[in-house]
Amino acid sequence: MAVVPLLNDEEAGADALAVFDDIRAKRQTDHVNNFWRALAHDPAHLRSIWERAQQVMAPGALDPLVKELIYIAVSTANGCDYCVHSHTAAARAKGMSPAQHGELLSVIALAAQTNALATALSVPVDGRFKA
Amino acid sequence: MAVVPLLNDEEAGADALAVFDDIRAKRQTDHVNNFWRALAHDPAHLRSIWERAQQVMAPGALDPLVKELIYIAVSTANGCDYCVHSHTAAARAKGMSPAQHGELLSVIALAAQTNALATALSVPVDGRFKA
Amino acid sequence: MAVVPLLNDEEAGADALAVFDDIRAKRQTDHVNNFWRALAHDPAHLRSIWERAQQVMAPGALDPLVKELIYIAVSTANGCDYCVHSHTAAARAKGMSPAQHGELLSVIALAAQTNALATALSVPVDGRFKA
Amino acid sequence: MAVVPLLNDEEAGADALAVFDDIRAKRQTDHVNNFWRALAHDPAHLRSIWERAQQVMAPGALDPLVKELIYIAVSTANGCDYCVHSHTAAARAKGMSPAQHGELLSVIALAAQTNALATALSVPVDGRFKA
Amino acid sequence: MAVVPLLNDEEAGADALAVFDDIRAKRQTDHVNNFWRALAHDPAHLRSIWERAQQVMAPGALDPLVKELIYIAVSTANGCDYCVHSHTAAARAKGMSPAQHGELLSVIALAAQTNALATALSVPVDGRFKA
Amino acid sequence: MAVVPLLNDEEAGADALAVFDDIRAKRQTDHVNNFWRALAHDPAHLRSIWERAQQVMAPGALDPLVKELIYIAVSTANGCDYCVHSHTAAARAKGMSPAQHGELLSVIALAAQTNALATALSVPVDGRFKA
Repeated sequence: MAVVPLLNDEEAGADALAVFDDIRAKRQTDHVNNFWRALAHDPAHLRSIWERAQQVMAPGALDPLVKELIYIAVSTANGCDYCVHSHTAAARAKGMSPAQHGELLSVIALAAQTNALATALSVPVDGRFKA
Repeated sequence: MAVVPLLNDEEAGADALAVFDDIRAKRQTDHVNNFWRALAHDPAHLRSIWERAQQVMAPGALDPLVKELIYIAVSTANGCDYCVHSHTAAARAKGMSPAQHGELLSVIALAAQTNALATALSVPVDGRFKA
Repeated sequence: MAVVPLLNDEEAGADALAVFDDIRAKRQTDHVNNFWRALAHDPAHLRSIWERAQQVMAPGALDPLVKELIYIAVSTANGCDYCVHSHTAAARAKGMSPAQHGELLSVIALAAQTNALATALSVPVDGRFKA
Repeated sequence: MAVVPLLNDEEAGADALAVFDDIRAKRQTDHVNNFWRALAHDPAHLRSIWERAQQVMAPGALDPLVKELIYIAVSTANGCDYCVHSHTAAARAKGMSPAQHGELLSVIALAAQTNALATALSVPVDGRFKA
Repeated sequence: MAVVPLLNDEEAGADALAVFDDIRAKRQTDHVNNFWRALAHDPAHLRSIWERAQQVMAPGALDPLVKELIYIAVSTANGCDYCVHSHTAAARAKGMSPAQHGELLSVIALAAQTNALATALSVPVDGRFKA
Repeated sequence: MAVVPLLNDEEAGADALAVFDDIRAKRQTDHVNNFWRALAHDPAHLRSIWERAQQVMAPGALDPLVKELIYIAVSTANGCDYCVHSHTAAARAKGMSPAQHGELLSVIALAAQTNALATALSVPVDGRFKA
């Protein structure tokens, strides 16, 4: 179904395989997601995304679970089915409860609704909101 | 600039004005955002959105600030300028620090990037992500 | 603000001017919208869009006002501010009442909300909905 | 394939089941769509969407079929496959003819095309379109 | 899975079949893509899209392969799975190399990322970029 | 109008200023775009995007001008006004002719139109397009 073949370990070149091994080590799992296997045709791009993802999703001023919730929200608004699935699974692995998932969905749905209204009415930004 | 006139307190009908008053009381401010003034042409819709927003954005399994971050994420992906402005202001009012804003932007930007790659490669969902 | 200059009648070439004149005649107004003035740099494209628009928006199995409501709905979901403004004006010119506008907004907002939920939950299509 | 299991009648709690029963009674069918079964994990959200949907889609200033056409238009622009399928089925059940469906597609396609042009040219809104 | 049946040659009317035959002749293949078979319910729309596609995608100031790359970029941003698949295939048929595909993905991913940042920050357009 | 103040050279910290200086040196201009000034609140993010942009937009298997056209296409589909303006200016600086701009617009508009049709009809991907 993919636009390019998903590369297994034998098909991936040495540079891509090194990233796969790093993913397995950091995530403590044998499984490498299809997303990384599809990107492996361009090992430099694969490495760039993997390294950026580790930096961005690490604990910092925001909690790692909160970052996953934000990721799901963006993926939903962009209509990215793969991303919704993979980051909902990641959020669960980081402790998202069914109640938290339910509230996440409520906020996403409310935001989608009010975004549509603000656009359809072309509401001008209040002066007090500007930097 | 709006598609409909923004109704001030004199122009709003009694039903809309009651919602404006409730907004002022609950938010402890004299200011009623343009969004509500644009919706005031349809008082039933105005009340429905205001009541739903209070329920959804209240503390629960997720922190109110986390909910605002999710709201900003959806609004960004939907390209809603008004919503980005108003909910960034709301997040600041609920305590969002510049470092938290910076990390929010990093997650949104990473998600937009990987969403595009997953779509452009049509990556199939891994079996383990399915319910 | 536009990416290209909006061509006035003097700046437009003969081919573009002929389309402007046709727009004025068919719409019985002296005003030519900014959209057509921006497209006038490519007279063949201008004519193609104008002719297609006339065919598509003419009365047929659907009423011309209904077609404008659909146009507003698409423009809202696409976040096209120009299009929301111009087609809301067009809908009013074709008789859209404030009550109809209010119901249009309610449907658009409900659809945006449930679209987000269906995507965030990746709801599989019911077998009975398939052709 | 869904992100959460679709709840059948045995799995749904009493609050969700009451909504399922109301859906069956109001729609005069034994079938409850997957959308409602996916939402049933959060019975309060399920009820809120179901009640709002009944209000919004009821006859009013706009015909129920017109409302379904608007719903399809939004769902198409949002790229929501589930929503396109379910509301095309709903529109057919409310009498949408093949000719009406064909014209709906023509308006959606024209709007998508001109939306893209207005955005790519950043056409400024004509003064006369502003409220 | 489609919302309408895909018409085979026997089911298509004479007007649609004439377009199918033209597609086969111009593309020198027996295969008619599902897109055209889905559009065949409305032969006038089918012909209009096919003729416009031939004009737009022909060699001109831009190379036909470049036009396919642009097509993939738009289809990715719109989240159109069918379009990503069909135009990636078309780009390969016109000579897109794996390295070119890799660079295309890098540009699309960078643009998605910076688009999100520009929107989330609501960056005002620099005066020098305006027409 | 921005969500954060645009930092001028005096307001930017040393790390951000070093990136501004690099931008000026590499682009041989005194002007630093608003986009970079908005990102300067997070100097690490600013540097990351600037370095990635240089790598991605450099000559390679695709021509730099072609990359700008792809960038405009993505920005249009995402409805990012800032991005459309800045990359249309960049494309012109790299030699985009009015005829090339016109053809770019035609491809973007055609793709938006057919994307909408493929989505509204939920056309299944042809087996021959799959990897």
